[in-house]
Amino acid sequence: MSLPPDSQNDDSSTTDALAQTRRTRTVRVGDRGCYDVATINAILDEAPVCHVGFVDGNLDSPDGPVPVVIPTVPWRVGNELLIHGASSSRMIRRLQSGGDACITVSLIDGWVLARSAFHHSVNYRSVVLFGRPRLIDDESEKRAALDALVEKIEPGRAAKVRAPNAQEMKATAVLAFPISEASAKVRSGPPKDDPEDMAHPVWAGVVPLALVAGPPIEDHA
Amino acid sequence: MSLPPDSQNDDSSTTDALAQTRRTRTVRVGDRGCYDVATINAILDEAPVCHVGFVDGNLDSPDGPVPVVIPTVPWRVGNELLIHGASSSRMIRRLQSGGDACITVSLIDGWVLARSAFHHSVNYRSVVLFGRPRLIDDESEKRAALDALVEKIEPGRAAKVRAPNAQEMKATAVLAFPISEASAKVRSGPPKDDPEDMAHPVWAGVVPLALVAGPPIEDHA
Repeated sequence: MSLPPDSQNDDSSTTDALAQTRRTRTVRVGDRGCYDVATINAILDEAPVCHVGFVDGNLDSPDGPVPVVIPTVPWRVGNELLIHGASSSRMIRRLQSGGDACITVSLIDGWVLARSAFHHSVNYRSVVLFGRPRLIDDESEKRAALDALVEKIEPGRAAKVRAPNAQEMKATAVLAFPISEASAKVRSGPPKDDPEDMAHPVWAGVVPLALVAGPPIEDHA
Repeated sequence: MSLPPDSQNDDSSTTDALAQTRRTRTVRVGDRGCYDVATINAILDEAPVCHVGFVDGNLDSPDGPVPVVIPTVPWRVGNELLIHGASSSRMIRRLQSGGDACITVSLIDGWVLARSAFHHSVNYRSVVLFGRPRLIDDESEKRAALDALVEKIEPGRAAKVRAPNAQEMKATAVLAFPISEASAKVRSGPPKDDPEDMAHPVWAGVVPLALVAGPPIEDHA
């Protein structure tokens, strides 16, 4: 599910690490923060889904603002993370209304079964990104962006499918978030039990998990 | 990854459908909203990860409140969705500070490859839940809750691992969200192309995706 090689995603021109901000700096001891651009981009490219968090002022209660988290497919073009949706959708409208969003991607790599309940964990790779989007409204940029989404699903496919018509282009909004305020976290490897638990008589280790494609199911016209 | 059968998760005592609220009501034509409790619970039980959205007032900017979306493992006990974390973590502290949270779970079931770019889609099952948590601070309830988390990872495991000690119990906070204001969305099946595109010469159908466990990797003491 990686993006096809092309000049837009040639990472050689990007900086090596993003600057930390007060929102992306990891504050707890033992946190697994990482600001390496290549690591962040690889996680974003592999993810079939991201979770977009925004504040919906229309839902605010006397107790304060209400967050909304919506899943959608992310894809990367260069130094931006793109999402799309119906132009009329709540998510698209709210994201353009000025506030910050938080987009989080999580790839689950395995259950970590420790000898102690406390040290059970998950192997994962995640990215948390803050920012606000720009609307891609230039016609040719928007078409190229939507092509890149189809290419993420199946490299080489964009040239083969029926391209969006004018009505479909109008009904679809594409938003681009800068990949500039983001951090990755990665946990991998075996459980980390306390020394005094190592002889506890229970199976310990990792059960790998991966999102695996099954045999394609053709739709017969 | 379903929870073990036990009386706490006997759904026969739950209502059949949750009431819609202005936050969970789907507003767009064609949305796939579902309020069926059994459907919602099944999605929550299968999910290895959820995305917890909350507003972090400490990060607020002149442009308004800032949402934060954090991945964590959810598990269900009866009519509540539980999460846990370090008692000192930002997420746990903010979630207890009074505001609403939004917890979203997404299971990805496949890429939907249509004949037109526009009708490409994803087969998925998702739940969006709004609410605020209660802290589980009763000692025996908290131990049972943490056992249920281990049981989600591997049924039968809770009795075999070294149980949490007093220090670990203190360091861990368990929060329970009512599964009362929630909705599910499900998309399944083949692409839905427009009739005039059905003869377009490109493969169309579904590439199933599933989170699959690989051979366990034992950690040798």
